[in-house]
Amino acid sequence: MARTLITGGTVVEATGSVPADVLVEGERIAAVGAPGVLAGAAPGADRVLDATGKLVVPGGVDVHTHMQMPVGEVSSADSFATGTTAAAWGGVTTIVDFATQQAGEDVRASLEARLAEAEGQCAVDYGLHQIVGGVDQSALAALGDLADEGVTSIKLFMAYPGRLYSDDGQILRALQAARELGLMAMVHAENGLAIDVLRAQALARGEGAPVHHSLTRPSVLEGEAAHRAIALAEVAGDVPLYIVHMSASEALAEVAAARDAGRNVFAETCPQYLYLTVEDTLARPGDEGAAFVCSPPIRSAHDVHDHRADLWRGLRTDDLAVVSTDHCPFCRKDKEGRADFAAVPNGLGAVEHRMELLWQGVVAGHLSPERWVETCSTTPARLFGLHPRKGTLAPGADADVLVWDPAGRTRLGIGGKHHSAADHSAWEGVEVAGKVDTVLSRGTVVVEGDRFTGRVGHGRYLRRDRSSLLR
Amino acid sequence: MARTLITGGTVVEATGSVPADVLVEGERIAAVGAPGVLAGAAPGADRVLDATGKLVVPGGVDVHTHMQMPVGEVSSADSFATGTTAAAWGGVTTIVDFATQQAGEDVRASLEARLAEAEGQCAVDYGLHQIVGGVDQSALAALGDLADEGVTSIKLFMAYPGRLYSDDGQILRALQAARELGLMAMVHAENGLAIDVLRAQALARGEGAPVHHSLTRPSVLEGEAAHRAIALAEVAGDVPLYIVHMSASEALAEVAAARDAGRNVFAETCPQYLYLTVEDTLARPGDEGAAFVCSPPIRSAHDVHDHRADLWRGLRTDDLAVVSTDHCPFCRKDKEGRADFAAVPNGLGAVEHRMELLWQGVVAGHLSPERWVETCSTTPARLFGLHPRKGTLAPGADADVLVWDPAGRTRLGIGGKHHSAADHSAWEGVEVAGKVDTVLSRGTVVVEGDRFTGRVGHGRYLRRDRSSLLR
Amino acid sequence: MARTLITGGTVVEATGSVPADVLVEGERIAAVGAPGVLAGAAPGADRVLDATGKLVVPGGVDVHTHMQMPVGEVSSADSFATGTTAAAWGGVTTIVDFATQQAGEDVRASLEARLAEAEGQCAVDYGLHQIVGGVDQSALAALGDLADEGVTSIKLFMAYPGRLYSDDGQILRALQAARELGLMAMVHAENGLAIDVLRAQALARGEGAPVHHSLTRPSVLEGEAAHRAIALAEVAGDVPLYIVHMSASEALAEVAAARDAGRNVFAETCPQYLYLTVEDTLARPGDEGAAFVCSPPIRSAHDVHDHRADLWRGLRTDDLAVVSTDHCPFCRKDKEGRADFAAVPNGLGAVEHRMELLWQGVVAGHLSPERWVETCSTTPARLFGLHPRKGTLAPGADADVLVWDPAGRTRLGIGGKHHSAADHSAWEGVEVAGKVDTVLSRGTVVVEGDRFTGRVGHGRYLRRDRSSLLR
Amino acid sequence: MARTLITGGTVVEATGSVPADVLVEGERIAAVGAPGVLAGAAPGADRVLDATGKLVVPGGVDVHTHMQMPVGEVSSADSFATGTTAAAWGGVTTIVDFATQQAGEDVRASLEARLAEAEGQCAVDYGLHQIVGGVDQSALAALGDLADEGVTSIKLFMAYPGRLYSDDGQILRALQAARELGLMAMVHAENGLAIDVLRAQALARGEGAPVHHSLTRPSVLEGEAAHRAIALAEVAGDVPLYIVHMSASEALAEVAAARDAGRNVFAETCPQYLYLTVEDTLARPGDEGAAFVCSPPIRSAHDVHDHRADLWRGLRTDDLAVVSTDHCPFCRKDKEGRADFAAVPNGLGAVEHRMELLWQGVVAGHLSPERWVETCSTTPARLFGLHPRKGTLAPGADADVLVWDPAGRTRLGIGGKHHSAADHSAWEGVEVAGKVDTVLSRGTVVVEGDRFTGRVGHGRYLRRDRSSLLR
Repeated sequence: MARTLITGGTVVEATGSVPADVLVEGERIAAVGAPGVLAGAAPGADRVLDATGKLVVPGGVDVHTHMQMPVGEVSSADSFATGTTAAAWGGVTTIVDFATQQAGEDVRASLEARLAEAEGQCAVDYGLHQIVGGVDQSALAALGDLADEGVTSIKLFMAYPGRLYSDDGQILRALQAARELGLMAMVHAENGLAIDVLRAQALARGEGAPVHHSLTRPSVLEGEAAHRAIALAEVAGDVPLYIVHMSASEALAEVAAARDAGRNVFAETCPQYLYLTVEDTLARPGDEGAAFVCSPPIRSAHDVHDHRADLWRGLRTDDLAVVSTDHCPFCRKDKEGRADFAAVPNGLGAVEHRMELLWQGVVAGHLSPERWVETCSTTPARLFGLHPRKGTLAPGADADVLVWDPAGRTRLGIGGKHHSAADHSAWEGVEVAGKVDTVLSRGTVVVEGDRFTGRVGHGRYLRRDRSSLLR
Repeated sequence: MARTLITGGTVVEATGSVPADVLVEGERIAAVGAPGVLAGAAPGADRVLDATGKLVVPGGVDVHTHMQMPVGEVSSADSFATGTTAAAWGGVTTIVDFATQQAGEDVRASLEARLAEAEGQCAVDYGLHQIVGGVDQSALAALGDLADEGVTSIKLFMAYPGRLYSDDGQILRALQAARELGLMAMVHAENGLAIDVLRAQALARGEGAPVHHSLTRPSVLEGEAAHRAIALAEVAGDVPLYIVHMSASEALAEVAAARDAGRNVFAETCPQYLYLTVEDTLARPGDEGAAFVCSPPIRSAHDVHDHRADLWRGLRTDDLAVVSTDHCPFCRKDKEGRADFAAVPNGLGAVEHRMELLWQGVVAGHLSPERWVETCSTTPARLFGLHPRKGTLAPGADADVLVWDPAGRTRLGIGGKHHSAADHSAWEGVEVAGKVDTVLSRGTVVVEGDRFTGRVGHGRYLRRDRSSLLR
Repeated sequence: MARTLITGGTVVEATGSVPADVLVEGERIAAVGAPGVLAGAAPGADRVLDATGKLVVPGGVDVHTHMQMPVGEVSSADSFATGTTAAAWGGVTTIVDFATQQAGEDVRASLEARLAEAEGQCAVDYGLHQIVGGVDQSALAALGDLADEGVTSIKLFMAYPGRLYSDDGQILRALQAARELGLMAMVHAENGLAIDVLRAQALARGEGAPVHHSLTRPSVLEGEAAHRAIALAEVAGDVPLYIVHMSASEALAEVAAARDAGRNVFAETCPQYLYLTVEDTLARPGDEGAAFVCSPPIRSAHDVHDHRADLWRGLRTDDLAVVSTDHCPFCRKDKEGRADFAAVPNGLGAVEHRMELLWQGVVAGHLSPERWVETCSTTPARLFGLHPRKGTLAPGADADVLVWDPAGRTRLGIGGKHHSAADHSAWEGVEVAGKVDTVLSRGTVVVEGDRFTGRVGHGRYLRRDRSSLLR
Repeated sequence: MARTLITGGTVVEATGSVPADVLVEGERIAAVGAPGVLAGAAPGADRVLDATGKLVVPGGVDVHTHMQMPVGEVSSADSFATGTTAAAWGGVTTIVDFATQQAGEDVRASLEARLAEAEGQCAVDYGLHQIVGGVDQSALAALGDLADEGVTSIKLFMAYPGRLYSDDGQILRALQAARELGLMAMVHAENGLAIDVLRAQALARGEGAPVHHSLTRPSVLEGEAAHRAIALAEVAGDVPLYIVHMSASEALAEVAAARDAGRNVFAETCPQYLYLTVEDTLARPGDEGAAFVCSPPIRSAHDVHDHRADLWRGLRTDDLAVVSTDHCPFCRKDKEGRADFAAVPNGLGAVEHRMELLWQGVVAGHLSPERWVETCSTTPARLFGLHPRKGTLAPGADADVLVWDPAGRTRLGIGGKHHSAADHSAWEGVEVAGKVDTVLSRGTVVVEGDRFTGRVGHGRYLRRDRSSLLR
């Protein structure tokens, strides 16, 4: 079994940092030792990686990506191959993507089809959540097999009527099923029916510019849906609930209240909501603005609430437990030239840049390095049944390691570091502190400085356990 | 350097558990390895401890004890020697006790005196907080040297007028000083002036029975003081605030609100508040009830608030970050035969039983094993500048290790396991699941099954760093 | 013009009580004078009513009744004739009932039909709200004419899918229309879709007993719907919102929060929610329990929340602004013998007893006499555009007067005072303090002691103004 | 008995407005009648006041004034004579001022001295609250007689250590006494001890400019004191609590929470807090800024909280029940030329302008005309035991009447309407909508257009009843 010794760095885990060496044997972490101890104990390491001056952290875990996802007639820009390669470039060694069942479709078939799509196509390990877009008796019955396949979470939509939307009765039934089966229930929490009214009215008034995408999805309707999801989860017996891609102060307040009350409610946010504003993005003229259409929308800097400040605070207070990306970029040709905002496919890309972007929160003093690791790696792994295989450098864990150079700098976007297949970037031209130095996936070095040394097909499907609820 | 290998157990840290072996070299953790890895790598271990079927956790850190503390003419029952020995018996390898400056006294002198008292008397490692019971210019000036002595926290009293009490002006000035010096500010949050009125009125009505100790310290006055401390800490520039021995739902709610707002506010509770009720304790006849006098008081099971349920919830939600003991038992002769509750010295003992008692929260499903470790060891170490030396099994940490047998059982109290010098126990006759199997302090086995193998004098003074604020 | 002088009583209005005489000329209050002043000024009164020792208050205004309302194949027990006669017997001189448009029906036609039903059939004055049970373009367009007909409020249902239910898009559009037209928007706030799931599941488990009517409508789903209605009203431009028949602490908390934030949100409760419990009613065996089926349901005395105590508190704090009855009794033959609770028509009767029942809140110290008048008469009149014509004894107001004998006693129900056409009573056998002494409707004495001196046909249709929002 | 008929106006009371005539006989309201009714009934009125186009409202009740109050070596500018004359000019027909007991002084003597000062000196009716500035056994014992003298409220200070300050034990004891005696407890809620620290520190840093008066009294310390007062009032058995001159959002939030919980907690604000900002006032150079020193201080427009917007909202939601003035102006010579802000006597004047200034809230849409009457007249009268004698135009009430011309305009300040003895005005040059047209005090016309027709000595001492608590 190949042995790699990472020496001289500072090992940062969710609850603390120590100078330590990490011994990798084969695909696993074999040991973590005080500086020098393992070198003495294991003289014959095949390879020694010098991490002096660098942080050695568990590889990133991004539990919210949409590779090669069809939306209408187009598809998200990244295949599993390009998307997971970009992930590796960003120090992300695990993604959890989605199988999608729509109304009338077979859940099992949707899962198998998605597994087949990903099979052999990933550069890093991957798991799947199951989207249930058509809750009915047959779909609910099919959920019983998911855990056996390593799919221990379902996702429900309170938005997108006519597409993936579930009404409250369907939501409740699916939550009850999740409760019974021990699955984590994820929800996209926006009031889709109300939003559709606002969209239709805006379009009827001729307000089709991208900025209206945000104006017709007011934050109060994200807060409303979060409150409703939490109430329905209570009725379903306090099923663990995970609210995806939170963008709004109002929604965060609902999560905070539920958590104070001891409820099993969790939430994630994404880099776009922490950094971007309507004024900088959707308000740009024409197709420039359209490039930033995603849902929930990017919020205005001039709202009643300071959403970004509140989200950063939520990350600190753990009311936001996870940062993921909702990675779902579309190419220019698919985003541009649309009649109005409603015709623009939704989604941005960030899978490569999550670790880089969140590190800026450390630089700015919002988060500790430990909290960076916790929100980007440890907690997502724990909440989605991947811990301690992922999200930690504990002995026995998969040797997914990011060696992070805090002294480096990285320029993001097409003109800089950009490996997604999307032909543009929401982060174009942003220069950040820190740099991905080396990345190991299950013991294999897949990124080394500016070289990708991994390969498509290296990534394996992860059969996930049930969630550890953290408390 | 002596080498000890702990094999076959499950290493439980604050964020996860793995089957792993722990290699101790001298006084430190040298490495943590997957099962077998270190045995191979370090064949010549001097000693191998078989932890099969057991949990291997960082030794307990109890940041709130009062050994040999004079109260009026009496003194708490445990000397540093007996108290830290009892601690060791309970898997606690670090205590933080207090130096006490009173009005008109010299801070430095009080610290040196306390250091001298403890020197050579402790069976496990120990640190000190500085009580500032007489805030004035001279006392504040003296705080500047504390951090150099490894004392990075001060404690203030909003209770006990005429003894340790500070008025709000004094509290504010001390908080400002703490802010400037980077010290953690601890407060005993009860409205002592209002309580004194209620006490005097009760005594004037002839209500001197022990139950009136609780009735004259209503929980709303603990909540009030918590709110006030939090407000004053805000005025002092958001100095980190740590509210000790929380017993009341109202106080917890104040902490939760402050934390939701992103404030650096922390709180601890103690086993007595999680388990005991007035009805079971203070309401007992005569001196039996008097034995349970402590402040804040044990609360009634029939209050408007279900304090115990709320405190357990707070431990889960991290609004309570720490469990400590406020260990301060008095012998029968000192507690008994008093004219009324006001004449009874305040305090209970639990330093030996904290790990045991809190494990019952794991058994009952209130906490995960990881959260047990976090609240009893990791977080107190982090908050009080002892991490990663204490509170973790990370390489380089002090080899303070508790091997815990979850299959064992322990009977607490004089009739069972009891090593405090107090001649009675608040936990008399309680039988709990789990058992302290083996305890190492800085690499030395100090408890082995039913044998104490340590020695008074082994414990060293801990110069503490500044607090890691966790977020 | 006939002149009546009411002398010797204490005039109680919403903000105060004074000993005063009331002069009625024709159908209006002509003057209110200090004792004796008007007697001197108006020597030729045709009639003098001696109110010595009694309270003289504005006639009750019950803004939530359902006379002769068809539900499936049955109909509520009271016709306009019997129901308004019962109202008069209870000191209620104004009711506001409902015209009902259902999906596919014409709003205007529904209003005209209802007006025709009531025409000439009422013993006291009456107005109508418009139920919009089928929100579509045509229905919304028709709302524009309502105010001209004196219908200045619409009612929407978040419950009863397939019958009167509106989805959130429909609710939003109706709220927007109300906002634009200056109409008050009333909502029945329960999550009907989720409730339907729980009902179907209960029935599938064979849980058809009446108690399951309450268990399948958990209070959290009333709170959820209240929160959602408030959020949608915010999106609709802070349209004034009135939540009907509140039964649940959770819903009340949502209203309180919205009102603290300055929102135009109002709520009513009903006597059944203030007094009755599941244990006393639905839990009775068989048809006895079925008699108490209404929605929202009567709540349990053993819930997490003490709903009744919270509702009384809400009445005091004005978070509940109005008490109405949701008067909708059904005869035994219609309530009894049903297969399960889901087949029992919903509704109880109380129009005759509201003033009597709420007076017990005065006796118990929950409310002042002024607040009794305010919640039962003044505020409903103000909120629904009837003030100062109704709800006050101010000069110029309609001479709707209740002379209330606080020293009397009244036995409610079939065996006592009962004038509804329903053949049973939710209040059977209850004996209350206080007694309706004399009632005037627009200057005419309609109840005099134990004699009804009014007549069906006396009541006139009230064209209501727009709401006064109170603040 | 002289009879005056006020015809043609709109009578505005707290809960509604009607066109009505008001008949005054002697000192009392004899009757309120529909237009024309009383004219017919009472042909021989001695005087007819034509109020066509005007509002006829109960005279203002200002429950917080400090006439001829000594502060150190100076005294507030208005004597009872000039201050109550100015009040009359402003439509205010009742003031409640204060008797002041200081530490070591006799309560009864302080009351008698104050009564003697006011006797024969007032142009309108007046009452007194009792300040207890030195809570001890003797002071508490003396409270038992207050109600017999018509003094049914005491005032306590949490600010001003060394002067009027009570510590929490004293506050609690005084609240207990108030509870037992049925007195309303008023508190000045600022944390005086903490403020004194901030003041001393600012002065030590040379920050003596007037703006530092506000900076050293941060709003969080007003919120803190409000929370504490509410908690102590709970411990004292929910004694009714009235928090004076609220200026801060944080304090308002505490009151709102207490009121939601059903507590008997009330609060007032003053015009200066609704309109003025630090930037416009204290920040002015030198003595110009000093003119605006009052406590609590005027707040900044750039705080975290928008205090003014929150206070206006609180007035709407009734979390602020009363507007009073804390009228306490000082002459230029007394305010100016001081070494620093701490040497400037505290206080502004507004007794003449409260009705005028608050009417602008009606014009701006913050309040209804009814709410203007309620907050400025009816509620203060009810809360302080003056209703229905004051605060209403009900028959039997004192004929204190303000005829208000909504079409008029008034220019405030020395250059306009100003009758206070102060030689400057906080409202200098402000022109407002509306105008005091005519004022009656106990049936006597005291202001008629631009003429003062009253006289010093007309005002009588008001023996107040116990508070009506409104709920």
